[in-house]
Amino acid sequence: MGKVITSMKEDYAQWYNDLVIKGELADYSAVRGCMVIKPYGYALWENMRDALDKMFKDTGHVNAYFPLFVPKSLFEAEEANAEGFAKECAVVTHYRLKSDPDAKGKLIVDPEAKLEEELIVRPTSEAIIWNTYKGWIQSYRDLPILINQWSNVVRWEMRTRLFLRTAEFLWQEGHTAHASKPEAEAEAKLILDLYADFAENWMALPVIKGIKSANERFAGAEETYCIEAMMQDGKALQAGTTHFLGQNFAKAFDVKFSDRDNKLDYVWATSWGVSTRLIGALVMAHSDDDGLIMPPKIAPLQVVIVPVYKSDEQRSAVSEKANEIVRSLKALGISVKYDDNDNARPGWKFAEYEMKGVPVRIAIGARDIEKNVVEVARRDTKEKKAVSMDGLAVQIQNLLNEIQQNIYHKALQYREAHITKADNWEDFLNLLDDKGGFIAAHWDGSAETEENIKDISKATIRCIPLNNEKEEGRCIFTGNPSSQRVLFARAY
Amino acid sequence: MGKVITSMKEDYAQWYNDLVIKGELADYSAVRGCMVIKPYGYALWENMRDALDKMFKDTGHVNAYFPLFVPKSLFEAEEANAEGFAKECAVVTHYRLKSDPDAKGKLIVDPEAKLEEELIVRPTSEAIIWNTYKGWIQSYRDLPILINQWSNVVRWEMRTRLFLRTAEFLWQEGHTAHASKPEAEAEAKLILDLYADFAENWMALPVIKGIKSANERFAGAEETYCIEAMMQDGKALQAGTTHFLGQNFAKAFDVKFSDRDNKLDYVWATSWGVSTRLIGALVMAHSDDDGLIMPPKIAPLQVVIVPVYKSDEQRSAVSEKANEIVRSLKALGISVKYDDNDNARPGWKFAEYEMKGVPVRIAIGARDIEKNVVEVARRDTKEKKAVSMDGLAVQIQNLLNEIQQNIYHKALQYREAHITKADNWEDFLNLLDDKGGFIAAHWDGSAETEENIKDISKATIRCIPLNNEKEEGRCIFTGNPSSQRVLFARAY
Repeated sequence: MGKVITSMKEDYAQWYNDLVIKGELADYSAVRGCMVIKPYGYALWENMRDALDKMFKDTGHVNAYFPLFVPKSLFEAEEANAEGFAKECAVVTHYRLKSDPDAKGKLIVDPEAKLEEELIVRPTSEAIIWNTYKGWIQSYRDLPILINQWSNVVRWEMRTRLFLRTAEFLWQEGHTAHASKPEAEAEAKLILDLYADFAENWMALPVIKGIKSANERFAGAEETYCIEAMMQDGKALQAGTTHFLGQNFAKAFDVKFSDRDNKLDYVWATSWGVSTRLIGALVMAHSDDDGLIMPPKIAPLQVVIVPVYKSDEQRSAVSEKANEIVRSLKALGISVKYDDNDNARPGWKFAEYEMKGVPVRIAIGARDIEKNVVEVARRDTKEKKAVSMDGLAVQIQNLLNEIQQNIYHKALQYREAHITKADNWEDFLNLLDDKGGFIAAHWDGSAETEENIKDISKATIRCIPLNNEKEEGRCIFTGNPSSQRVLFARAY
Repeated sequence: MGKVITSMKEDYAQWYNDLVIKGELADYSAVRGCMVIKPYGYALWENMRDALDKMFKDTGHVNAYFPLFVPKSLFEAEEANAEGFAKECAVVTHYRLKSDPDAKGKLIVDPEAKLEEELIVRPTSEAIIWNTYKGWIQSYRDLPILINQWSNVVRWEMRTRLFLRTAEFLWQEGHTAHASKPEAEAEAKLILDLYADFAENWMALPVIKGIKSANERFAGAEETYCIEAMMQDGKALQAGTTHFLGQNFAKAFDVKFSDRDNKLDYVWATSWGVSTRLIGALVMAHSDDDGLIMPPKIAPLQVVIVPVYKSDEQRSAVSEKANEIVRSLKALGISVKYDDNDNARPGWKFAEYEMKGVPVRIAIGARDIEKNVVEVARRDTKEKKAVSMDGLAVQIQNLLNEIQQNIYHKALQYREAHITKADNWEDFLNLLDDKGGFIAAHWDGSAETEENIKDISKATIRCIPLNNEKEEGRCIFTGNPSSQRVLFARAY
C-alpha cells in the first residue's frame, strides 16, 4: 500500500531522492542534469518566492529582467568572475537548424547560421547587468540601484542531484549599485540578515551567519557572506550568499558616477542569491522516514481533511461537516483541501499526505459527528487526538504555529548538538567520520592550509561566524598560531 | 524640461519606441534582439502575471517548471512543430570555455567540450513537456493534467522590436492533457475566454475572439484560437492564442492512456500562451503624445501625490496632509506614492508621471489645505479638478474605476470604427492604405488565395470570428463563392 521510501539510516542519499520523487516535488528530465519541478514542488517554490519577494520589496528593492544570454566578450570582462564560471558554461554557437539532407524528418545545425560571437547562457548575471548599469548611472542621484531578478541560470555541473545541484536552476539574484563602500557593505549585510530571517522564520531552518574564507569566496567578490545550515546526516549546506563586490565590476565595465562634489569614482556593488537548492535543504533538514515534513508557513497545503464513511448517507453527512470546516479554515487564510476522492481508502490517503508532509490532517467520520469532534493528526510528531469542532479553526491555526516552532526547534537542537570543538588533527578527523556536523577548530588563516585540510578530510571551512569569539589557539593542521575558531564541515 | 517624445502622427514607430524607453518600461541590451525589462515595466508584468495566474488557478490549473533546453532528438519528434521553429532556434553546442592560448585573459569555446547531442533553447515547450508526460500518464485517472509554466523562451527573430518581437521573451505556456477530444477542445475555448476576459477587464483592451486560418495556425496544432486587438495606427495585434493540438504530440511522443474500458488511446492535448508582447499592445492601444496611459487595474502605480510648497513650513503642512491621504488610499488597497523629492519641481514631476501613465495625480499645496481640497488630475482625459479632502479616498477609488472603463471604451470605439466591410479588391486595398483597421471581406477559403492576398496587400487573415454571421458572397480576390466574411488586417 502506498509508496515505500528507503530509510534515512539505511541510505541517506537514496532516502533524499525517494522523498523528492515520491513526495512529487521534482522528476528527472530528458536533459542531462536538468530537472522538472512538479506542481507540488513548484507550489512550494512559489510560497518561498512570494515571502522573499515581499521582504525584498519591503526593504526598497524592485524587480527587473535582464537577458538570458551573455556575449562572450562581456562574460570575460571581469576576469576573476569569468574564470570562476568558464568551466561550466552552456554556449550558444548557432541560431538556426535545417533539414538533414541525409535523413528525412531530421534536423541538423545549420553551419551557415554560426554566431559571430558566442553567447553564454547566464550562470549568473553580473556581467550583463553591469554592462547595462553603465548606461543608467551618471551621477550619485542615480544611486543606489536596488534591483532583484527572478530567473533561471545554467551551470554545467558534472555531478548533479535533484534541487541540490542541477545544471539549470531557478533563483533570485540581487544586483545593487552604490555610491560608497560602507553603503554597499551594509547592503550585503542587510540581505544576509534578511536571508537568515527567511530561513529561520519561514523555512524553520536554523542557520549560522558568517563570512567565507578567501578560497570559498564568490568569483569576483571582495567578501562573501553566507548562511550555513546543518542537514540530518551531519553535512552542512550553504543556504544563501551575499557578496560585497567592491568596485570590481564597475572597473571591468567602466561604470563611474560623479559624486556630490562632482568627482568621478567607480560605483560600489553587491550581489546576492538564493535558489531552488533551498528546497533540497528543506527536505533534508526536516523530513523523516515517512516522508516530507513541510513547515506550515510555506507548505503548499497546510491542512487536508479526509472523510471516513461506509455508506452514501454517512458520506453526505461527513461532507457537509467537512465543507463547514473548509470554510472556517479558509476564512482564517489557511490553505486546505477536502479529499473526498472515492477511488482511494482513508489509510492510503493518510500515507500519501504524510509522504507529502502536509502539516495537519483532519479525519472525520460518522461517529465523530455524533461526538462533535474530529481527529487531528500533526505531521511533525505524528500525534493524533480528538478535537472538538467548536472553535476548531482557531485551534488548527494555533497548531500550525506550534508545528512551525517545533520543526524549527528540532532542527536547532540537532544543529546545536552538532557543533563540536576539536583541538587536534586526530580528533578533527574522528569527529568528521563518527559524528559529523560543524567542527569548531583553529586554523592558521592560510589558503594553503585550508586546501590541505580539504584534500585530506573532505571538510571545508563553511564560515567564520559573524561576531565570532576571539580565542588564542593553534591551527589543528599546522600548529601555527590562530586567533579564532572557524567552522569546518563536510558539505553539500 | 522633461523628456520629449515623437508624436504619434509624425512617426508611429518612433512614438512607440519613445514611450517604451522614456516611460522606462524597457531598454535595449548588449545581446542582439534581447531587451532589458526595467523595474517599471517589470512591475507592470508582475501585475499582469498575478492577475492571469489567479485566473488559471481559479480554473483548476497548477504551475510547474520544465527544462530550458530541448535535446535535438526530442525537438524534431513532432515534425510540423519542429519545422515551424527550426529556423529561429538558439542552439547550445558546447558546455565549457577555456583560456585563449593566444590572448591573455580572453576565453574561447573549448572544442573538447562539444555536446554529443545539441540542445535547443526552448522556443516553446511542447516537446520537452510531452516527453515528460509520457512518464506521468498511464490511465484516465492520471488525466486531465492542467499545467501552466511561467518562463522565458527564445525565438531568433531577424527583425526585433521592444516587447513586440524580441529574441527572448517572458510568457506563460499552458500544456494540458485530456482523455477526450471534446474535453481538450473545451479547454482551448475556456482559456480563450479567460484571455479575452483578462485583456478586456484588466488591460482595457477590447479583443475579437476567433479561429485562425490553416496558414496562420500554430505549428503542430489542429486548430488555433486567438484574441485579436486593434492598435491606434490601424494595425492588428495578436494578443494571445490557444491551440487544440489533437493527438499530434501524444503520437510523436507515444503518450497513451487506458480509458475506463481499459482500451488504449493517445492522449488529447492543448497548449496556450500570452507573453510580454501584451505590454507592447497595452502601450500602443492606450497611450498618447504625452506618454503612457496605464489601465488602473494593472498600473504599477495607481496614484501619485505631488506636493507644492514654497517654504519649509508649507512643506511640512503639506506632507502631513499628504501622508494622511496615503494612509487612507492604502487602506482601500490603492497603490500610491508620495513624491516629495526636493530635487525636482512640481511641473517636472507632473510631466514625468504623465509620461509613465500613472492614472491619477493628486497635487496638494498650502492654499489647498486652507480650502480643504486637493487638485486631482486624471491621466486619460487630462481633466483636473478640485476635490474635497472629505471622503477623498473613496472618490479616488471611484475615479480609478471610471478611468478603467473610459480607457476600455475609448479603445473599443476606435476598434469598432475600424472594422470596415470591403466587397471588392480595389476597396480592400484602398481601405488598407487609407484607413487601416480590420477589413471584413469574403475569402474563398483556400490557402493559396490567402497567400496571394498577403503577398500583394501585406494583410493577413487575423481570424474568423467565433459565432461569425454566415453570409453568401464572392471572394474579393478570386471571385469564388464564400459563405462568410473573415477579418483581414495588416498586423504586428
